[in-house]
Amino acid sequence: MNELRKDPLLNRWVIIATDRAGRPHDWPRGSSGSSKSDPRNCPFCPGNEKHAPGPILEWKGGSHEMPDSPWSLRVVPNKFPALRVEVELKRKGVGMFDLVTGVGAHEVVVETPEHGVGFGELDLDQAALVFKAYRERIGDLMRDSRLEYVLAFKNEGFGAGASLSHPHSQIIGIPVLPLRVEEELAGARTYFNTKRRCIFCDMLDTETMMRDRLVYQNDGFTVFCPYASASPFETWVLPRTHQHDFTTVTDADLSRLADAVQTVIRRWHKALGRVDFNFLLHTSPNHALFDRLCPGVQEHFHWHIEMFPRITSTAGFEWGTGFFINTTAPEEAARVLRETVA
Amino acid sequence: MNELRKDPLLNRWVIIATDRAGRPHDWPRGSSGSSKSDPRNCPFCPGNEKHAPGPILEWKGGSHEMPDSPWSLRVVPNKFPALRVEVELKRKGVGMFDLVTGVGAHEVVVETPEHGVGFGELDLDQAALVFKAYRERIGDLMRDSRLEYVLAFKNEGFGAGASLSHPHSQIIGIPVLPLRVEEELAGARTYFNTKRRCIFCDMLDTETMMRDRLVYQNDGFTVFCPYASASPFETWVLPRTHQHDFTTVTDADLSRLADAVQTVIRRWHKALGRVDFNFLLHTSPNHALFDRLCPGVQEHFHWHIEMFPRITSTAGFEWGTGFFINTTAPEEAARVLRETVA
Repeated sequence: MNELRKDPLLNRWVIIATDRAGRPHDWPRGSSGSSKSDPRNCPFCPGNEKHAPGPILEWKGGSHEMPDSPWSLRVVPNKFPALRVEVELKRKGVGMFDLVTGVGAHEVVVETPEHGVGFGELDLDQAALVFKAYRERIGDLMRDSRLEYVLAFKNEGFGAGASLSHPHSQIIGIPVLPLRVEEELAGARTYFNTKRRCIFCDMLDTETMMRDRLVYQNDGFTVFCPYASASPFETWVLPRTHQHDFTTVTDADLSRLADAVQTVIRRWHKALGRVDFNFLLHTSPNHALFDRLCPGVQEHFHWHIEMFPRITSTAGFEWGTGFFINTTAPEEAARVLRETVA
Repeated sequence: MNELRKDPLLNRWVIIATDRAGRPHDWPRGSSGSSKSDPRNCPFCPGNEKHAPGPILEWKGGSHEMPDSPWSLRVVPNKFPALRVEVELKRKGVGMFDLVTGVGAHEVVVETPEHGVGFGELDLDQAALVFKAYRERIGDLMRDSRLEYVLAFKNEGFGAGASLSHPHSQIIGIPVLPLRVEEELAGARTYFNTKRRCIFCDMLDTETMMRDRLVYQNDGFTVFCPYASASPFETWVLPRTHQHDFTTVTDADLSRLADAVQTVIRRWHKALGRVDFNFLLHTSPNHALFDRLCPGVQEHFHWHIEMFPRITSTAGFEWGTGFFINTTAPEEAARVLRETVA
């Protein structure tokens, strides 16, 4: 059975998910996100619904509807989950160590019936539908008060950690805050307590004023390469107005968000050659637990999407030290992305 | 010019090292550590010394001496350094952000004249000589009081972030503590303050008593897969007696350390197929700065080597969240490594 184990030194939780070891892989090793594996064996293709557990959510219509598909987007439980909802939450000691049973949720957003397209190639409406599914599922999972955090993220391509090539994202609800999120919340709180301003709002002001790290703006979102980018072409997408909670995003903004994220992906592909990538949504923790986990989060946190193309393989050293060496200045990355037409 | 930039949220430093972007690469993409590129173009091969800056240290003799090589191990400045010793240490503000000039040291340990062998294939004496070079260079660099930390590490193989295939390690002296090291020191201090015992010594007791994560022991060192391993087959090597500072390690222990590290690498290769890997040395910070950086470190810290084979490509998501999903239980990894004869 899967479990969460606490690193006794680093105050960091790790999921030991041996259930996931048997999951299928169809990415040819080393291929990029455009690889087309055989749709007949794909558990996410229309007609193969029986290979995935029954849907949590299924939407019809939408611009990617295919004549032979009864749905245009669906969310299914992960068949090889890192965490399971039906597990009882228990905290135990194991000698000097600590564990929590592997309770949580692990869902897959099947983004389109169409096999083997990249997120950048989806129609704008379909990409917006993906973010709408995030909003719906995150909001629903937050009703489970055992879950401290719900994380939505996408791995595209073998090099980004994806195991299947059919376009999909993942949503994980977890009974502990991820360390990076906790550190981000703590950093934002410290800044707010000193200045009485949201650090993300200050970054937006700084980046739109300085312009050298600015990539793109639309009516709802600002896109820039952060000052201390840990990897080449790291790019962040932030709502232009202060919003701590992604589940309150409007339909109009979902479409603007899709535009911003797809613009980044298309420009990466154009400027760098087709790249594998990750993006992840950092929103505030479970509403019901604000008072315990992060008092004042409404004022000091600002939801955003962090995006990373996987163009270097230096993560091992960095991973073991938390110390990053980035060979591309964010000002240079932003200049390239500003000047790329895609 | 390279610089260290502080992430305003995460309290983490990133080196923006645009000088390194032009460095040569000779790993065929996707190849493993046994790849033999053309030694004629290798800046680390005997006869090509003119392509690397003059040596900081050069040792003759040793079991890997080749008839046509005037040296058996050398340490040279990195030709494409992340940080440079000749830079003046300055701390500046850039709008809301903070930077430190790129002062530091970045050296390459050329581990043998022999091109294209892996660390696991070195003779025991030669591997011990590599660790002796770490001891010598770390001790010397700590005389520079601008450097808060000196880190020795090895990337073997393209997938582990190595750019050249001639066996080498790197030593970086940095003007700030890496976040992971800082967190580790803080975790160890908190534990010590509660229990008055070294957490690493307690781990050694626990792992030798429980045995299910134990991999190997010799007269000087204990090898185990840590309880909260963040990646499959992560393996730690610890001196069996309490030692906070690697620069005080004895010659006899250097040889035992080489035996322990090579045993792990050989068993990885045997059990998993040839793997790319990283290992890194976590020792206490610069001696001269103990009082400021980590009072009491002599009692609460315990130097060790952390080793990671690069057999999964999931780091992107983990990297952005600090939240790791490991599909191989450390008990299973340790069982495989205990039972492997290599």
